[in-house]
Amino acid sequence: MATPAKTPEPPYYAVIFTSLRTEGDGGYAETAELMQQLAKGEPGYLGFESAQEGEFEITVSYWRDVEALTAWKRHMDHAAAQRRGREHWYAAYQVRIAKVEREYGFEAP
Amino acid sequence: MATPAKTPEPPYYAVIFTSLRTEGDGGYAETAELMQQLAKGEPGYLGFESAQEGEFEITVSYWRDVEALTAWKRHMDHAAAQRRGREHWYAAYQVRIAKVEREYGFEAP
Repeated sequence: MATPAKTPEPPYYAVIFTSLRTEGDGGYAETAELMQQLAKGEPGYLGFESAQEGEFEITVSYWRDVEALTAWKRHMDHAAAQRRGREHWYAAYQVRIAKVEREYGFEAP
Repeated sequence: MATPAKTPEPPYYAVIFTSLRTEGDGGYAETAELMQQLAKGEPGYLGFESAQEGEFEITVSYWRDVEALTAWKRHMDHAAAQRRGREHWYAAYQVRIAKVEREYGFEAP
């Protein structure tokens, strides 16, 4: 089950990816799973959170620094997947690179 | 329908709120709606995105600067809601304050 990611003390980086899907799968689920697996193997990877509600999806990945998230994007032909995404999978998406400055949380005993 | 938020040129701020709910509602939906309405009326509010999948929810709100998001939290007794949240609504949550440095996106023609 999905839970809030366990991340170290800030500062670190977040990639906030919000998307509106088109209908149907067309290989999306498989490629999304591959992206996540590749992220986990990358140096500087800190965590991953994702929630999909109907056709709207928010995915947040966490990274040690800008270099780590840039390497991930290059490494795995993410660019190619994005090209395919624009053509087939997405009606719209937005990518935001953000530096996490402060963090707090709660966990039930 | 939920869509990626339209935000201005960075820099601006994001509050990434990820939570794992307990079962049942107990007034949660009503209070969450109120929080969002109050945010929209705040100076410096830029946008709001939310997706809930089962008991896991990701909510991202966008703000002009740290002052704007801090004012929102104070203004609306958010603290009280959080207290209630810890006791009733959440098994766990994580709040991250992040400065958006870069943004790009796509929208189908």
